[in-house]
Amino acid sequence: MNQDYIIPNSWSIIEEGFKPENIKSSESVFSLGNGAMGQRANFEEHYSGDTFQGSYIAGVYYPDKTKVGWWKNGYPESFAKVLNAPSWIGINVVVNDVILDLNTCKSVSNFRRELNMKEGWLSRSFIATLKNNVQVHVKSLRFLSISQEEIGAIKYQISPLNCDAQISFEPFLDGNIVNQDKNWDDKFWNILSVFSEKSSAFIEAETMKTRFKTCTFMHNQCTLNGVRVNPIFSEKNQRQKIGHKYQMSVDKGSNFTIEKIGGYTSDRKHNNVLLDAKSALEIASKKGFKILLDEQAKAWTKIWQMADITIEGDVKAQQGIRFNIFHLNQTYSGNDPLLNIGPKGFTGEKYGGSTYWDTEAYCFPFYMSTKSPNVAKNLLEYRFKHLEKAIENAQKLGFNSGAALYPMVTMNGEECHNEWEITFEEIHRNGAIAFAIYNYQRYTGDTSYTYSNGIYVLIAITRFWCQRFNFSEQKKKYVMLGVTGPNEYENNVNNNFYTNYIAKWCMDFTIDTLNILKDENIQTYNEVIAKTGLYQHEIDDIKSMSKSIYFPYSKEHGVYLQQDGFLDKSLTPVSEISSDERPINQHWSWDRILRSPYIKQADTLQAFYFFENDFSVDELEKHYDFYEPLTVHESSLSPCVHSIQASKLGRMNQAYEFYLQTSRLDLDDYNCEVHEGLHITSMAGTWMSIVEGFGGMRIKNGQLNFFPKIPKQWKSYSFKINFRGKILKVSVEHTKFSFEVSGDEPLTIIVNGKPTRVEPNYSIAS
Amino acid sequence: MNQDYIIPNSWSIIEEGFKPENIKSSESVFSLGNGAMGQRANFEEHYSGDTFQGSYIAGVYYPDKTKVGWWKNGYPESFAKVLNAPSWIGINVVVNDVILDLNTCKSVSNFRRELNMKEGWLSRSFIATLKNNVQVHVKSLRFLSISQEEIGAIKYQISPLNCDAQISFEPFLDGNIVNQDKNWDDKFWNILSVFSEKSSAFIEAETMKTRFKTCTFMHNQCTLNGVRVNPIFSEKNQRQKIGHKYQMSVDKGSNFTIEKIGGYTSDRKHNNVLLDAKSALEIASKKGFKILLDEQAKAWTKIWQMADITIEGDVKAQQGIRFNIFHLNQTYSGNDPLLNIGPKGFTGEKYGGSTYWDTEAYCFPFYMSTKSPNVAKNLLEYRFKHLEKAIENAQKLGFNSGAALYPMVTMNGEECHNEWEITFEEIHRNGAIAFAIYNYQRYTGDTSYTYSNGIYVLIAITRFWCQRFNFSEQKKKYVMLGVTGPNEYENNVNNNFYTNYIAKWCMDFTIDTLNILKDENIQTYNEVIAKTGLYQHEIDDIKSMSKSIYFPYSKEHGVYLQQDGFLDKSLTPVSEISSDERPINQHWSWDRILRSPYIKQADTLQAFYFFENDFSVDELEKHYDFYEPLTVHESSLSPCVHSIQASKLGRMNQAYEFYLQTSRLDLDDYNCEVHEGLHITSMAGTWMSIVEGFGGMRIKNGQLNFFPKIPKQWKSYSFKINFRGKILKVSVEHTKFSFEVSGDEPLTIIVNGKPTRVEPNYSIAS
Repeated sequence: MNQDYIIPNSWSIIEEGFKPENIKSSESVFSLGNGAMGQRANFEEHYSGDTFQGSYIAGVYYPDKTKVGWWKNGYPESFAKVLNAPSWIGINVVVNDVILDLNTCKSVSNFRRELNMKEGWLSRSFIATLKNNVQVHVKSLRFLSISQEEIGAIKYQISPLNCDAQISFEPFLDGNIVNQDKNWDDKFWNILSVFSEKSSAFIEAETMKTRFKTCTFMHNQCTLNGVRVNPIFSEKNQRQKIGHKYQMSVDKGSNFTIEKIGGYTSDRKHNNVLLDAKSALEIASKKGFKILLDEQAKAWTKIWQMADITIEGDVKAQQGIRFNIFHLNQTYSGNDPLLNIGPKGFTGEKYGGSTYWDTEAYCFPFYMSTKSPNVAKNLLEYRFKHLEKAIENAQKLGFNSGAALYPMVTMNGEECHNEWEITFEEIHRNGAIAFAIYNYQRYTGDTSYTYSNGIYVLIAITRFWCQRFNFSEQKKKYVMLGVTGPNEYENNVNNNFYTNYIAKWCMDFTIDTLNILKDENIQTYNEVIAKTGLYQHEIDDIKSMSKSIYFPYSKEHGVYLQQDGFLDKSLTPVSEISSDERPINQHWSWDRILRSPYIKQADTLQAFYFFENDFSVDELEKHYDFYEPLTVHESSLSPCVHSIQASKLGRMNQAYEFYLQTSRLDLDDYNCEVHEGLHITSMAGTWMSIVEGFGGMRIKNGQLNFFPKIPKQWKSYSFKINFRGKILKVSVEHTKFSFEVSGDEPLTIIVNGKPTRVEPNYSIAS
Repeated sequence: MNQDYIIPNSWSIIEEGFKPENIKSSESVFSLGNGAMGQRANFEEHYSGDTFQGSYIAGVYYPDKTKVGWWKNGYPESFAKVLNAPSWIGINVVVNDVILDLNTCKSVSNFRRELNMKEGWLSRSFIATLKNNVQVHVKSLRFLSISQEEIGAIKYQISPLNCDAQISFEPFLDGNIVNQDKNWDDKFWNILSVFSEKSSAFIEAETMKTRFKTCTFMHNQCTLNGVRVNPIFSEKNQRQKIGHKYQMSVDKGSNFTIEKIGGYTSDRKHNNVLLDAKSALEIASKKGFKILLDEQAKAWTKIWQMADITIEGDVKAQQGIRFNIFHLNQTYSGNDPLLNIGPKGFTGEKYGGSTYWDTEAYCFPFYMSTKSPNVAKNLLEYRFKHLEKAIENAQKLGFNSGAALYPMVTMNGEECHNEWEITFEEIHRNGAIAFAIYNYQRYTGDTSYTYSNGIYVLIAITRFWCQRFNFSEQKKKYVMLGVTGPNEYENNVNNNFYTNYIAKWCMDFTIDTLNILKDENIQTYNEVIAKTGLYQHEIDDIKSMSKSIYFPYSKEHGVYLQQDGFLDKSLTPVSEISSDERPINQHWSWDRILRSPYIKQADTLQAFYFFENDFSVDELEKHYDFYEPLTVHESSLSPCVHSIQASKLGRMNQAYEFYLQTSRLDLDDYNCEVHEGLHITSMAGTWMSIVEGFGGMRIKNGQLNFFPKIPKQWKSYSFKINFRGKILKVSVEHTKFSFEVSGDEPLTIIVNGKPTRVEPNYSIAS
């Protein structure tokens, strides 16, 4: 379970020693990305061992024909796959006619890999003895440029240690790529052209069906002992692959180096992918590797200035949080409102699509607090742009009059998912999308998005809920039948508390928003009413329905029930499951899981997280004590919410355990699946468990509140947040905490319930 | 919906006129079978239009790799497919160098097809004008021999009407066949050898994976105007196909005829498939077409003597019931305890597998009453042979100690199905398998199977139920969570009344059987206890659990509820669904169906059918009035049960409507799907709706009971049953009914509650 091969370090992820069995895991962990593209940490040189090759361009996808055993009405026709793109990183290395391949070398020593998170680069070095007994020392450095998003760069250096050698670098572009994740044997790419121009080469390719046009490119340049050289050059053009060859006699001890600049343009952003590729390449190769690398370090410094969280006294915890923040920034930069945060980012293909409710429920607060407000707004705009598709999606399922059901998984607004119990029933996702609108408004104080666009999303979602509830003559209340809550270990249940609760909340928030809008801006209000046809009788119906929503409750236990009938289960705590049956999703049949009481991820407790002000701390404690012992946390999204609630209840040991689990989920490979890619969206939960959990940050009445706590394992921690134009740094130690605000104006915050004025550029401490 | 092109006729299914759009439907309706093999009514001559070619050998299957979108723990690795076998019926016909093809002829007239059910043959005739303007008259006759089960025979005759012509018959065997129903592109057959011997030819082939060896064969012989001739002969051997050619100059008006005898041997029954094919062919071709046809008529006369149901005054109803009885006999002869009754028989491939709970719940009574008791016993033995596999299947799902879960679909005892809500949850199937043991014992009075084998099945099933119930602290009763009842429009529900009821019944019946066995035969009892390890404490546990099973009940409505929470639904009757939304399974999304109250097939009412003695007629009426208006009958298995209950309640119009729906389901193509094959298993339900519905036949205390009723649309009806060595004929008219018993001894039966002595060979009338 715990890989334990990543060396603890506060700023870097480091692996030492060459272990083929770790290759695929490390390819995930050491992944690079710059928001526009990303790639797994595949070797540049040929590797014949077990590997998962992956390089991805943000937003370039393929709608793979749906695969099911038994078709159900309403299933989508396709599932948008994250699409492996033509690869540009390859550099075959030939030493005296033998290809360098760590899988076949006589020996490999001093292998070291470092993902430097501070400056945003990946390095690798090793000494290898080839089959022909030539011993070489190799060092490579690679990054994907934050400042020039089409560009990545590699510096690859080899030095023969025990003899002079003929060495060739054979950098190439490769269009012969396949997806690991595919339903059928469809061809995903059509290669349009493959050609060289001097020391550059290009592959123009187009995705099938979606017809995204892309250009993959490279430019290469060699040096010997730091001096630019012109080795013997040749070129090999295959139908889907193009390679250059730079051959040189290299003396023992000399360093032969190639600097490869490559990357992608796509017609998502470029009118002419080839011309723009050429000009991007020209700019970058003029700068050269060194300047690009300096820019990279500066760009990451800027990101960290805002996003960093420091932890003193616990290097593994420090490494964990930075790893999470680093990957979140690699995945999504927030400057493109058509992109979103895929569950695996650029580190794998599993799950496909790019957008789940993870974005609104987990990622949104991180980007909102550590980036400019524009980034969070882009995430809201993303859903607004998909509103028409969400209305169509609901229509397919029999809803009408502008009701919207946002998809469970999507790339372009269309539903991709195809398990009926999820696709049609895990409808609570609609709630999180509405909640993000509220969350943004609460945090920024800015209602402009809500009134211009958000209100249409809210009305459409509210209409969906109103149609989805039905009146139970038995209960004399509105009930919601046949849903799947956040706990996917229950399917097709009735009256899931979380879903009913967030649905009612949506209805109320929509009506409240309309009332305020009516007061504040009658003209916009009238426009909204006219556009949506939401007249008074419908508003009255919504209000009246909202007052009669049914919530399952147990008087005996004093808790709301996850769903109808929950108490019929055998409520044996998780602690009594034999450890060789954990995780249960790998050991139990599906029906056994379904009829067990075990909870995959926070469900009722998720409602207590979103709507904590509606419940007392006593109530939280009761529900936490009822549900936590039944929770198996087999979703990456679970421990963070429990960590926040444990913090709130002052159960710091448990909060700390959950924190470690969430922050080092991938580094320590808790679920034995890191080789498939990283759990990107849950990484934002890690951030929340520090800022909202330990830091106790809340927004109430437009003000920042903190209830700082610290796990006993730590000496101190600090984080920064961007709040309404000010940067606030929060530092917490065991005996004191301090606040520091940027800019010219003071900021009044509430600390442990007491208003506290923080002067600009002045740190106050408790 | 209603095809309405089948001409009403009491003994034949007749189609007149050539309509390409009906081809695939007619290929199903006119299918032939003899229990050992079967085939769709494909044309012998080449047909280039839309067709579904199918020829099947009983018990020869292929385990096709499971296809699912999202794998769930516990899914089976494969789904046993009904396997299209090398075809032997083909005879290409070439007239003056132009191939006869009804799809490309200039005109086709006098097209007539007849399935003669009385004698068990299929004929076809037509006049066609070929592209070369030659007009020909064609007559063909085909049957699959009941008396020699490897053999089928075709007599194909052509006569040029407007000129002399060169005519070739090109009979062939074709191994180039594909399944319509397949998950992947697997190759299902390996062709081993293809060769001729004089006027015979053979294809030896083996199925992939399962390695069933088969031989497909033919022998041909030509006549001109009834006189045997030796036309110019040639042979064409392709890799997977072999053809012979018989060429002849035929004068205008002369009849050129080929008699083709063909069929299959398989190593399921034949040690040497080739030698046995040769000897079968020798026997058959020595007899020749005419004698084989006479034998066929005699064999069917024998079947009808026992199985026929007559209806006077309603030719469509008469045609319907004979069509059902005919196909049931074509599908399953009952002499092979390794075979069973597939949902499509030999008429299509959909659903795969061969055995569903349909066998025990619907087909069993038909075969038990119209065949020798051995046939019903074979159906029981079939499940006994699969007991170990059923125990393994339960183990996979986490059950232990000899608990058995029989598969939802199977060919060899292994589960094939792969929808979690069915595979893992539609577990009531176990109940029907136990019920058949009881049903056999009740009907035959023979307990020998129960004590020798059935008891082991009962104990294993009872153990499954005991583990599947759990105690609800809330209800202080045992509950069964997460099941799918017979109504598959509900998934993963709690406390399905039917499932809980039949589970409790199994437990009680098992204990009762053990008690009787203990009294009657302590030695066998001890053997059973020793073999199963079912000691007194477990018996006590079963008894005690059985007393505390929970059944959902509504005091307000006075009915048992289909499942927990049923009353939370909007209970709008089916009659209010707009007709353009019917059937709902073709118009509504799956989630909408699930949360609707609509019932696919009898569910609670199925319990009232199986266990009618446990409920009063008043209770039946209440439940019928509650559930019938919510039932959409979108399963072929639904109308028969409702018809029986409507009869019992004296609602004869409704009973008659349901009867028509069940008996002419395929003839009138109610569900627009007859082109995929016939609904074989529901055909037995049609028989039940006459015998048990209108006739009111029941077995009580070892005696036959009748409550004869008759729909007003009929003049009279009659049926026979084989009861404990006696054949009883029951005839019902509006004003009287009569009984006639075969053999030497009288039979006392109960008619409308009154004991009535029926003397041998003497008809008594009311």
